[in-house]
Amino acid sequence: MSDNENKLWCQNKRQNCVVQPLLTDLYQITMAYAYWKSEKMNDYAVFDLFFRKNPFQGEFTIFAGLEECIKFLEKFHYSSSDIKYLKSTMPSSIDERFFEYLKDLTPKDVTIYAVEEGSVVFPRIPLLRVEGPLIMVQLLETTLLTLVNYASLMATNAARFRMAAGKNITLLEFGLRRAQGPDGGLSASKYSYIGGFDGTSNVLAGKLYNIPVGGTHAHSYITSFITLDDLREKTLAHKETGKVYDLLELAYKHRNSIAADIGALVSEASNGELAALISYAIAFPQRFLALVDTYDVESIESSAKRQAYIVSLNVKNKHLINGSNKHTQNGVRNDPVISESTSHHKNGFLSQGELGELYVRSGLLNFCAVALALNDLGYKAIGIRLDSGDLAYQSNFARDLFERIGIKYNIPWFGKLTICASNDINEETILSLNEQNHKIDCFGIGTHLVTCQRQPALGCVYKMVEINDQPRIKISHDVSKISIPGKKVAFRLYGADGCALIDLLQRSTEEIPQVKHKVLCRHPFQESKRAYVIPTRVEPLHKVYWKNGKLCQPLLTLQEIRNKVQESLRTLRNDHKRNLNPTPYKVAVSDDLYNFIHDLWLQHAPIGELS
Amino acid sequence: MSDNENKLWCQNKRQNCVVQPLLTDLYQITMAYAYWKSEKMNDYAVFDLFFRKNPFQGEFTIFAGLEECIKFLEKFHYSSSDIKYLKSTMPSSIDERFFEYLKDLTPKDVTIYAVEEGSVVFPRIPLLRVEGPLIMVQLLETTLLTLVNYASLMATNAARFRMAAGKNITLLEFGLRRAQGPDGGLSASKYSYIGGFDGTSNVLAGKLYNIPVGGTHAHSYITSFITLDDLREKTLAHKETGKVYDLLELAYKHRNSIAADIGALVSEASNGELAALISYAIAFPQRFLALVDTYDVESIESSAKRQAYIVSLNVKNKHLINGSNKHTQNGVRNDPVISESTSHHKNGFLSQGELGELYVRSGLLNFCAVALALNDLGYKAIGIRLDSGDLAYQSNFARDLFERIGIKYNIPWFGKLTICASNDINEETILSLNEQNHKIDCFGIGTHLVTCQRQPALGCVYKMVEINDQPRIKISHDVSKISIPGKKVAFRLYGADGCALIDLLQRSTEEIPQVKHKVLCRHPFQESKRAYVIPTRVEPLHKVYWKNGKLCQPLLTLQEIRNKVQESLRTLRNDHKRNLNPTPYKVAVSDDLYNFIHDLWLQHAPIGELS
Repeated sequence: MSDNENKLWCQNKRQNCVVQPLLTDLYQITMAYAYWKSEKMNDYAVFDLFFRKNPFQGEFTIFAGLEECIKFLEKFHYSSSDIKYLKSTMPSSIDERFFEYLKDLTPKDVTIYAVEEGSVVFPRIPLLRVEGPLIMVQLLETTLLTLVNYASLMATNAARFRMAAGKNITLLEFGLRRAQGPDGGLSASKYSYIGGFDGTSNVLAGKLYNIPVGGTHAHSYITSFITLDDLREKTLAHKETGKVYDLLELAYKHRNSIAADIGALVSEASNGELAALISYAIAFPQRFLALVDTYDVESIESSAKRQAYIVSLNVKNKHLINGSNKHTQNGVRNDPVISESTSHHKNGFLSQGELGELYVRSGLLNFCAVALALNDLGYKAIGIRLDSGDLAYQSNFARDLFERIGIKYNIPWFGKLTICASNDINEETILSLNEQNHKIDCFGIGTHLVTCQRQPALGCVYKMVEINDQPRIKISHDVSKISIPGKKVAFRLYGADGCALIDLLQRSTEEIPQVKHKVLCRHPFQESKRAYVIPTRVEPLHKVYWKNGKLCQPLLTLQEIRNKVQESLRTLRNDHKRNLNPTPYKVAVSDDLYNFIHDLWLQHAPIGELS
Repeated sequence: MSDNENKLWCQNKRQNCVVQPLLTDLYQITMAYAYWKSEKMNDYAVFDLFFRKNPFQGEFTIFAGLEECIKFLEKFHYSSSDIKYLKSTMPSSIDERFFEYLKDLTPKDVTIYAVEEGSVVFPRIPLLRVEGPLIMVQLLETTLLTLVNYASLMATNAARFRMAAGKNITLLEFGLRRAQGPDGGLSASKYSYIGGFDGTSNVLAGKLYNIPVGGTHAHSYITSFITLDDLREKTLAHKETGKVYDLLELAYKHRNSIAADIGALVSEASNGELAALISYAIAFPQRFLALVDTYDVESIESSAKRQAYIVSLNVKNKHLINGSNKHTQNGVRNDPVISESTSHHKNGFLSQGELGELYVRSGLLNFCAVALALNDLGYKAIGIRLDSGDLAYQSNFARDLFERIGIKYNIPWFGKLTICASNDINEETILSLNEQNHKIDCFGIGTHLVTCQRQPALGCVYKMVEINDQPRIKISHDVSKISIPGKKVAFRLYGADGCALIDLLQRSTEEIPQVKHKVLCRHPFQESKRAYVIPTRVEPLHKVYWKNGKLCQPLLTLQEIRNKVQESLRTLRNDHKRNLNPTPYKVAVSDDLYNFIHDLWLQHAPIGELS
């Protein structure tokens, strides 16, 4: 596309141009027509957007996506091509005047109350309360859900990774290639940053959202160099003096003198890898970070183990050759069956640890040689990346090596080189690595972060709670699915230690809970569950964000939302946040609201005889 | 946005304007610089894009995303704003000439071989083989992976749902609100259609991709009507005569005469629901499809059960009140603990079936009354949607009722009314419903379809297999991760029954396998696993799609790809496709390629003594 188009696109993209009124379920539009047709379109409706269960078997959720919701409202307008499409897809019996009506429809009469973006939130608390003409409020449903669901899920997942890793570890999002397509990848980058990640590998996300981007090289970079002859440029100028040196020569010298420290023979290290690292160091002398697990050292020991391993695989499969497993099926003579090879090493006689130990020596030897050569020219290397094997063991091995070399050569920063890790990491991997005292400084996390593997969707719903001042309740045989009727306000009550004690839903007509006064908090559906709370601080959770057709509350910047997440999480007791069996945080209703719910419930369920 | 902007946007969107060169991992660009700096940028490289394991514990995958890959190549160009961003984010030491070089960089010297979009594919078969100047081929990696991974995963998931449901069931994708944001939702709609779905609820996907859209109304539509007084318009004109009738009056009459058929008292049915259905029928007299599970019939029996149920809940929690569980923690007096209510009904004394049975009578009574009233005016209703409870039981109850009413009123089509179901359905739910002889005609599927819950990412990788005519192999301690080196071609060998027998990878220099000639097929890594195959048909799997800077093979339309999926699946034996313990389909290498792999492997692993 041309630069002008690109500029327009970029602008649109930041404003989520993909988010437009047709990004919705068809039933919203058929309902809109039926409301219009029955003259109910201006009935005054109140909808709550909320979820029923925290994700990831956890007990908290981060609310995100508000800014995108507001931007959607700001641009809400059916274009003539939208109208044309709707006409073509809806029954021909539709009254033409409805389409005229749609053309002028905007959310100018809608009011939206919302929790601040980046806040910790809990089940049943309305994240958004959307009020206004029934037709308009209904038409917003799907898009608002789409914008809040994945954003909040992703921010929550990222916040959990951050808690698992601790605050001193750098976390980078590497998930673009495993996301739900291009935009899934962009959302993942944005909301993982909000949730507490430090950056992303996704360059476009960096450009659009001004998020730090990071990354070094892949295995293919290493394997594209076969021998030292592939190194066409070998020289680098000294950082201070500008004098040009042969970096290969320097690295070669260092490799000879440190091989013993690593426990490898120089002859066993890969020269293609050395060439690749030299060339990379010449390109990025001040940002030298190298992937070190491409080749094993080709030691007698390791190759012997590998051979023995291959033999063992063949032995294990011998019964297939000699057994009675020979038969012909559809022309394939199966002697023996060829089947998918799955991770045989899991059953092999070498443990992951043993293999892991062997797999970084060539890379470490070459990396240290190049880093020392760079040091000769006045440059500090950044560090290494590990992408396979036993990360705890290997990071300790590497850290110990770096420290020993730092002492041997009197280069204090050498012991503090950065160790990055990036192999299919999830929250549990990090917790397990913590237990094993890993020495990793930075995690690059992809698949498990962006797909939210442990729970790939947050189940936000959008329920009508009031229409024309009449409360509406959804009764369900599943108690957790019963909606809390009426226009409600929510408060977070804090204790003396600054921690959040409980969230309280009240009817909008009730008096606000008072600091240092006893507040009766009740379980919304279980009569026997109630507690008195004496709050030290009372925080109203909702603010008006949209009224009279415009934003009426400053939106936080990405950075402010990101800070809000950490600040909000700090007010939550640790037992609510822990990974294993966290304590549920309580969400209560006032006594007034409790009675209101149950009176309404009984109206829908007249008492008969008990069976 | 204005209509002009909208038109441009729409055009761009269809061409995936979001897919541009910066939608990549930063390391591709740092590697590109290092290749350029070391004058390796024009080394001739060959990369394979493939996956190692079929998703969803299945034994097949549908390849999708090719069209988007080609469109990405067609538009590949770094805009000046891209260059500006890269300059700002990369180290200041980068040679300015590199950015000049990037400005003119296009994939004109890249050649892409690919499997036809919509084909059934298997592990290790290159879906794409990408050849050309190292720098360009490397820069394509992340974007190609992003475009193929989710598209193929989604198409595969949809195809599995289609197989589970059988060919006569209508399948609609309802997942927008649970997708990875807006574009995730659009991709889900597109690729579920390709995989075998009949349409989507996503209106924008309908507009952009010309996919059928479907949907009716939500519970909120029903609950927005409280009494019959909410019905402002009650009349409808006869379809043929044009004479205007009071639809409410007609429906009221029918409701009285069929209540006994449903086993409910008219006084127990919801009048708000009747008002809602009447108004919806007036809006869509020819497309009347109603959600029927909003209200329970308020019978003595059901309300008594509900009351007893509530009492039982309270009894179960009594120990919390009388027990020793009272303590104060941070100001919250816990007598008793308020905790998240989870699905209590699962432990209640009413089974899902019993409750399910009760929950559709009000809806069915009202629906039938309105459908019969519509029939009086010459209209045929479409049917009902069930969104909760025991779908097998309820669909049978409804089907039986429709048939009885059809006979009673002599309306033959009444027995064939459509029954839709849409409550959190996954592949297993459908298989289980099949076993229970459900009577559902149409499934609306959201969360489990779009998030691919069972496996939310396909692990496609992009590996260098050759550079400057030198083969590259990635050795791994995990045998399944070893890459197959060199430029390869793939064939599918078919048996006499038309079924695919085996996929065979060969070196590109070998002779093509011949029909009716014995072909030795070997497991790539296990010496002992081999089979002779005598093919009846030999299908080359790859075609050149991109060469000399342009598309050189006609791309299939969405509809053609959709047909290709079903056609390709038909050639696969049922035992490869079944849900439980499917037989792995074999992917083999020729004897020549086997020896090539192992010679190369041994070069990287000299034999030592066996330990």
